[in-house]
Amino acid sequence: MRMWGGRFRKPPDPTFVRFTSSLPFDWRLWRQDVRGSIAHANMLGGQGIIPKAEAGKIVRGLKAIYRDLEDEEKKHGKPALDPASEDIHTEIERRLRLKVGDLAGKLRTGRSRNDQVALDLRLFLADEMPGLMDRIGGLQGALVKRAEEHLNAKPPTVVPGYTHGQLAEPVLLSHHLLAYFWKLQRDRERFSDCMKRVRVSPLGAAAIAGTSLPVRPDLVAKELGFPAMFENSMDAVSDRDFAIDFLAACAIAMLHLSSIAESLIQWAGPDPKSALVVFDDAWSSGSSIMPHKRNPDGAELISAKAGRAVGNLNRLMGALKGLSHPGYELDLQEDKEAVFDSLDALNDSLAVMIGIISTVTFRPERMREVLEKESWMWGATEAAEYLVKKGLPFARAHEVVGKVVAYCEKEGKPLRGLALRDWQRFSPPAGHSPTAGVGPLFGEDLLERLTLDRCVGAKASPGGTAPQRVREQLRRAKGALRSALV
Amino acid sequence: MRMWGGRFRKPPDPTFVRFTSSLPFDWRLWRQDVRGSIAHANMLGGQGIIPKAEAGKIVRGLKAIYRDLEDEEKKHGKPALDPASEDIHTEIERRLRLKVGDLAGKLRTGRSRNDQVALDLRLFLADEMPGLMDRIGGLQGALVKRAEEHLNAKPPTVVPGYTHGQLAEPVLLSHHLLAYFWKLQRDRERFSDCMKRVRVSPLGAAAIAGTSLPVRPDLVAKELGFPAMFENSMDAVSDRDFAIDFLAACAIAMLHLSSIAESLIQWAGPDPKSALVVFDDAWSSGSSIMPHKRNPDGAELISAKAGRAVGNLNRLMGALKGLSHPGYELDLQEDKEAVFDSLDALNDSLAVMIGIISTVTFRPERMREVLEKESWMWGATEAAEYLVKKGLPFARAHEVVGKVVAYCEKEGKPLRGLALRDWQRFSPPAGHSPTAGVGPLFGEDLLERLTLDRCVGAKASPGGTAPQRVREQLRRAKGALRSALV
Amino acid sequence: MRMWGGRFRKPPDPTFVRFTSSLPFDWRLWRQDVRGSIAHANMLGGQGIIPKAEAGKIVRGLKAIYRDLEDEEKKHGKPALDPASEDIHTEIERRLRLKVGDLAGKLRTGRSRNDQVALDLRLFLADEMPGLMDRIGGLQGALVKRAEEHLNAKPPTVVPGYTHGQLAEPVLLSHHLLAYFWKLQRDRERFSDCMKRVRVSPLGAAAIAGTSLPVRPDLVAKELGFPAMFENSMDAVSDRDFAIDFLAACAIAMLHLSSIAESLIQWAGPDPKSALVVFDDAWSSGSSIMPHKRNPDGAELISAKAGRAVGNLNRLMGALKGLSHPGYELDLQEDKEAVFDSLDALNDSLAVMIGIISTVTFRPERMREVLEKESWMWGATEAAEYLVKKGLPFARAHEVVGKVVAYCEKEGKPLRGLALRDWQRFSPPAGHSPTAGVGPLFGEDLLERLTLDRCVGAKASPGGTAPQRVREQLRRAKGALRSALV
Amino acid sequence: MRMWGGRFRKPPDPTFVRFTSSLPFDWRLWRQDVRGSIAHANMLGGQGIIPKAEAGKIVRGLKAIYRDLEDEEKKHGKPALDPASEDIHTEIERRLRLKVGDLAGKLRTGRSRNDQVALDLRLFLADEMPGLMDRIGGLQGALVKRAEEHLNAKPPTVVPGYTHGQLAEPVLLSHHLLAYFWKLQRDRERFSDCMKRVRVSPLGAAAIAGTSLPVRPDLVAKELGFPAMFENSMDAVSDRDFAIDFLAACAIAMLHLSSIAESLIQWAGPDPKSALVVFDDAWSSGSSIMPHKRNPDGAELISAKAGRAVGNLNRLMGALKGLSHPGYELDLQEDKEAVFDSLDALNDSLAVMIGIISTVTFRPERMREVLEKESWMWGATEAAEYLVKKGLPFARAHEVVGKVVAYCEKEGKPLRGLALRDWQRFSPPAGHSPTAGVGPLFGEDLLERLTLDRCVGAKASPGGTAPQRVREQLRRAKGALRSALV
Repeated sequence: MRMWGGRFRKPPDPTFVRFTSSLPFDWRLWRQDVRGSIAHANMLGGQGIIPKAEAGKIVRGLKAIYRDLEDEEKKHGKPALDPASEDIHTEIERRLRLKVGDLAGKLRTGRSRNDQVALDLRLFLADEMPGLMDRIGGLQGALVKRAEEHLNAKPPTVVPGYTHGQLAEPVLLSHHLLAYFWKLQRDRERFSDCMKRVRVSPLGAAAIAGTSLPVRPDLVAKELGFPAMFENSMDAVSDRDFAIDFLAACAIAMLHLSSIAESLIQWAGPDPKSALVVFDDAWSSGSSIMPHKRNPDGAELISAKAGRAVGNLNRLMGALKGLSHPGYELDLQEDKEAVFDSLDALNDSLAVMIGIISTVTFRPERMREVLEKESWMWGATEAAEYLVKKGLPFARAHEVVGKVVAYCEKEGKPLRGLALRDWQRFSPPAGHSPTAGVGPLFGEDLLERLTLDRCVGAKASPGGTAPQRVREQLRRAKGALRSALV
Repeated sequence: MRMWGGRFRKPPDPTFVRFTSSLPFDWRLWRQDVRGSIAHANMLGGQGIIPKAEAGKIVRGLKAIYRDLEDEEKKHGKPALDPASEDIHTEIERRLRLKVGDLAGKLRTGRSRNDQVALDLRLFLADEMPGLMDRIGGLQGALVKRAEEHLNAKPPTVVPGYTHGQLAEPVLLSHHLLAYFWKLQRDRERFSDCMKRVRVSPLGAAAIAGTSLPVRPDLVAKELGFPAMFENSMDAVSDRDFAIDFLAACAIAMLHLSSIAESLIQWAGPDPKSALVVFDDAWSSGSSIMPHKRNPDGAELISAKAGRAVGNLNRLMGALKGLSHPGYELDLQEDKEAVFDSLDALNDSLAVMIGIISTVTFRPERMREVLEKESWMWGATEAAEYLVKKGLPFARAHEVVGKVVAYCEKEGKPLRGLALRDWQRFSPPAGHSPTAGVGPLFGEDLLERLTLDRCVGAKASPGGTAPQRVREQLRRAKGALRSALV
Repeated sequence: MRMWGGRFRKPPDPTFVRFTSSLPFDWRLWRQDVRGSIAHANMLGGQGIIPKAEAGKIVRGLKAIYRDLEDEEKKHGKPALDPASEDIHTEIERRLRLKVGDLAGKLRTGRSRNDQVALDLRLFLADEMPGLMDRIGGLQGALVKRAEEHLNAKPPTVVPGYTHGQLAEPVLLSHHLLAYFWKLQRDRERFSDCMKRVRVSPLGAAAIAGTSLPVRPDLVAKELGFPAMFENSMDAVSDRDFAIDFLAACAIAMLHLSSIAESLIQWAGPDPKSALVVFDDAWSSGSSIMPHKRNPDGAELISAKAGRAVGNLNRLMGALKGLSHPGYELDLQEDKEAVFDSLDALNDSLAVMIGIISTVTFRPERMREVLEKESWMWGATEAAEYLVKKGLPFARAHEVVGKVVAYCEKEGKPLRGLALRDWQRFSPPAGHSPTAGVGPLFGEDLLERLTLDRCVGAKASPGGTAPQRVREQLRRAKGALRSALV
Repeated sequence: MRMWGGRFRKPPDPTFVRFTSSLPFDWRLWRQDVRGSIAHANMLGGQGIIPKAEAGKIVRGLKAIYRDLEDEEKKHGKPALDPASEDIHTEIERRLRLKVGDLAGKLRTGRSRNDQVALDLRLFLADEMPGLMDRIGGLQGALVKRAEEHLNAKPPTVVPGYTHGQLAEPVLLSHHLLAYFWKLQRDRERFSDCMKRVRVSPLGAAAIAGTSLPVRPDLVAKELGFPAMFENSMDAVSDRDFAIDFLAACAIAMLHLSSIAESLIQWAGPDPKSALVVFDDAWSSGSSIMPHKRNPDGAELISAKAGRAVGNLNRLMGALKGLSHPGYELDLQEDKEAVFDSLDALNDSLAVMIGIISTVTFRPERMREVLEKESWMWGATEAAEYLVKKGLPFARAHEVVGKVVAYCEKEGKPLRGLALRDWQRFSPPAGHSPTAGVGPLFGEDLLERLTLDRCVGAKASPGGTAPQRVREQLRRAKGALRSALV
């Protein structure tokens, strides 16, 4: 069934029909399509564009259709659609015709599929985004919970902090986990920004120019809960910015999830024995050939889906690139599958990541063991800042400690395994100080400061990793989580 | 010159140095690097981390360096940099050493290049984005001006409105131009959203964990005019969301410019004689082999640069994909060139598009001629809505007019060339109405309504193309332009 | 059903299972999976790794499964799969177990899903690409047919040739159509290049390191018709280059189709009356609100799908970016959907484009009318080359004719409407020739040469648009089409 | 200076000129532009299109220009160009005019910038690709050398082989390194495929339609060393497939380099003490704040540049998407910067990777220590295949060993630390075997086979990791390296 044809002398080729049909994917918009139509019908009736009684009959028909579709979806996972309908709009009109007869044709009054389809996708995103944002909040909550747990542990759990993939300085596990919290917070903000541009009703733009009928797009917007309506009918039907915004926000969020996933995969490491984290049995899988494997499949797939989300963004930007006059073209039909796919990928990835984060076993003793026994190089910044506090310019302090490190590396000794007299032997490099060495600046208190918990505790600058700072941060994180967005 | 080396036994390979050096592009951050350092030095002095007098000396040195660099840039377009410096931070420190000697080394106290480089790029965007947004506003202003001019023309300029690249309905040129206005308005809003995430100071995060020195990142943020500082040091050094946001906003804006460009190119058309618009000599170019050409080079290049901006977005998202633990890695260095390139591409494209829009000659008579003489199909919606007003369901009205159109197409007659009796001959399709035809519904007034200006004037729904609606829209556009963003 | 689990103490979370399951899409590989397993079983039996009789039983079981699946697919469009199977490999093993009992477990001998899944996708592409290439050939054939038709027309059909979207010089429609032919020819060559890298069997690499069993990967490759086997087991399981190659080839081919589509859309133009081409009713569609529209939906969607194909390429490249050691990771699972989607998009787009090209009505009279009556500027190159033949340097000839063009533009006259004396009035620009003007160089024969067919016929350089050249080209095109690729 | 202007009444706006000027980047094509012009001039003279003596004079002028430019480039790194030239073609013509006067104008005879610029980029790639391919060969050679060194070590160096980022089975380091060899071999093949499409001369297509002058494009192609010329003039000027092919090949090669880089970074690991590899001082760098760091900057940047190369590919595909008729448009100008950037990124990354691979210290004892002492799980496949050889179906063997692994994990024992009687206690899972357990199948020889070198040596299937297989592979690799490509 098609919405046009009066002028055509032969039917479209089946290949053409199949190619241009959007029903195989746009059926997901059925709720929005029906709701949009109800609002439109109410407005038509209210404005007297069609008789009020007819509008009422149409609305009742649409409500019945909504219930039918809901039932079908509940039963079969998907409504039972007539494949001959070229899109969901046509399918709903077909069903309406079965309910109210020719009257169904009046629903098209003052409306085109151009404004209708734009509305449907906007309503869909407006419907789906709060859940998506909640799910991001769910992951933030899971992170907060694990951060709190490991901040309250005695002693608080300490992990290696990396720069350039190399151990840089020990940090609290809680601090590391909260770093993700803030990235996800920005994601929620980004979706919230996106929502402003989503919730603008395009209905009433008709095909492109508006209509000669006394429609009231503002009433439709209001009934649908949208705070704004379009300013310009040509913009209304051609604008897909909101979909790009959404896809970009999904891609960035997926990059964040990818980085959490990669981080866990690296901590799980190549061998269970030395792993800093262990994935729960429920969130990892085995191998068809190697009985000993515990594969972080879920995390890997999340990481890969970042590429997918970026690809979806490219899909739509690529589809739009090269379009000219502002008006509907079928090119715009490519918006939906990209949006659905990124929405699903992000929703699923969040659900899996919540499962992983909530159940992953962090191994504090192993983390501490790595830092105490296997790693030997942190503490260098601490030593340099020690010298700074004694008055040495940082650049020189850095150089001095650099030499100590080189010595340790050569000797195969950890920095904190050096005796005080070893430290005191180091002078600043020739040419920098005409007089004496800095060795004497090193005192007994240096060695005390080079313990793991002291080292972490010392980074007490705002936003730093010292426990009291992380506790404050945790409090702010909880506040951010409570305060509503959108 | 490098900021490290104490521990290394041989110098880096020249190929490695050249490969990892960022000075060839990050010199553009010199203003921000110096300003960030001044704020840092002031804070160090204020907090007594280094003696106040020394801080003062450093600040004076930095100010002198700022002036030197400004002079050099003025003279040569670019400061005279020591290619041995591996990045702009090192170059500034080198210059500072020349001014204040070893004291320069104290500037590194409580700061790492990890937080410094993040700050520089944020400051850079905070500096550049207002200008960029103004330039978007400049293009909006140019559109408003041309829209007003053609709305005030007598009669107002009418252009074909297209859907599917086909003439759909005539619209006001002003309406068409304002459609772009609102797209650009969203661009400004998007950059404004982005700005919120840009103006967060990361300084004080040090390498990754914060510092044991009593730094005050909030004071630094304040001195630099940033309303917020980081929440988490690990997030502070690893976050590049703001750069992706910026690149995404640039890509979307470039897609908008691309669509304006393509629209003008199509209107200019293949032949000057039939062109609806003529590019100004100052904004088009000739051919090396075909003396008659007037090529819309600028518009073409703008269109192509949408691809470039999308590519830049991919560059950074691709560079970030796969990173694991939150901390600085040199992968992040790829952020800058992408940001510079998209900034330049958008700035330049805006400048050119402002030039084009301000000078392009629209040819109202030719537009009218196309619609009156060459085109023959608009008016169909008008006729269908006419029937609707007489009580026919839209779907049936659509079908009836479809048949009239098919008849016109066969006869080679424009719709509005039909006599009333021709119209009256058309009945609804068999099976739909058991009783009479709809022909009689067509009355004398139909023909009156099928003139160009009546047709445009009839689309008086909110946001529609009727002159009074466009006048309102113009007023709102001016208001939007006046109201400050950011 | 899963292929592992001996060591796990709790079952995977249903969300995890759903997320990591590939059955919803990899079922499309069933043919390849069964065929690969048959080859593997034959080899296992032939090598005595499992008893020959058992191998025979397994093979018979697999063949029965193949038939079952084929029947199911024929009946329902898709085999009836057990959703509990995590992938198609598991599903086939499940079915095999039903046929041959525990013996099914022997099929996993010396094989991992890592090499199995790589094989399946390679076999799939090897199966699908010849059809895809044939379809490209089908479009080339359609172009050749239309080109021949319009070359044999009397006179041959002439169309505007554009540079910078502007009429540059008239060309034969056949020449224009054959330009696409050669682009598509490169596409076929590109797929053929890709095929070389596809048809390399990875089976026998096992999980990553090979196996201690006496497998013969060469025999498996041979049975499957692959000319080569892997060189290195680690490369075998991690390599997805062939899939990227395929996606890149699809993206380029889609860019070509996009350009054909855009070209037709522009020729169809905004108004049927002035259209240079008319889409067939069977390959275009109408509007739900505007009864007069004939929308080139199919062409538009093809154009947009170029963006989709580029997005799919990005999906996979993004998924792979950041992977480290060569070995299987679940990230690689993202390869399949991208491949399926681009394959389908290209196949469908080709089918639709063949339909469009074969049925589109070119309107030679209208094309000629545009060039003769509406356009006025071609002929300039012709005039310039005329002067060159009289001895003027091209640059000066260009300048002289440029002035003639400017004069025409001012006077609103077509170039070819000038009288000989008008031409003769033009001198070279001051300063270039101290002596006489070039006007006298223009003779009577100039005017003769400025007719449409003479102008086109004059471009007789190799590869040029003159009819005899296009005839030669057509012959070469047919030859290229006949000569087998792959 | 511009190549056109006869018809324009006012000069182009400076902003427009700057925007459309390509000289800032296309100067890199000067060699190709001059060589192409020489070939063109020779052909013009040879065909008598211009007098032979004039052609000779032009050629001599061009040769002098070539020498001038070479000198300038040698001295200043870049020729001294007149910024007023809009592109390199104009700049060369300007210089030619200084050498030979007005005669310079004759060089434009029968040539347009449209075919000229296409030729230049093709020549450039034809010039650059052999060096690029050699450099890939250089990296392959470095891998072969390190592979040979570690294969000849006694015992051969063994490393963990990973799937899902988890230790799967031990493999030879040589095998791991050679896995990259074959990926790079495909890269060379891909560039070689690309070269076929690059080396097609477009000169003689003129603006779009060919020319009326008796040019001989085949002679030009021959003089330039191109085996083929264009088939269709419209395709010749619009085709940029070869540039996309090149960018795609670069992107894939960069993904390979990225994976080598990530692999080394992970092996270098977070702490020098436990590192499996140590980057050479000459190919790593330090930290401005942490004196102990040895950062794999070069490797990180290589990894990130994979994103850049993907972005460049998108740039061009995005620029081309939406173009319609086959002919030159300024959109195509976007091809060059993307090509230059990817070429440079790949060339530089290869040089750095060659440096890294050639100097990185692999630590065989540490690798063995990890496998012998820290890791405890490999050997499982070996044990399963042991059971298979005793007649158990693989699926059951897998299950049995899975239970052994679970036991080990619980006990914290490595698999190979189990006594024979521990192994023998394990029975197949209930329900699978009604009769006896499989325990007795385990014999003394099992324990012997679970040593590192036996385990690796056992994987002697073709393409597997056993030393004799790797030795064969090494031989084939050397052969592949010797055999010329292109």
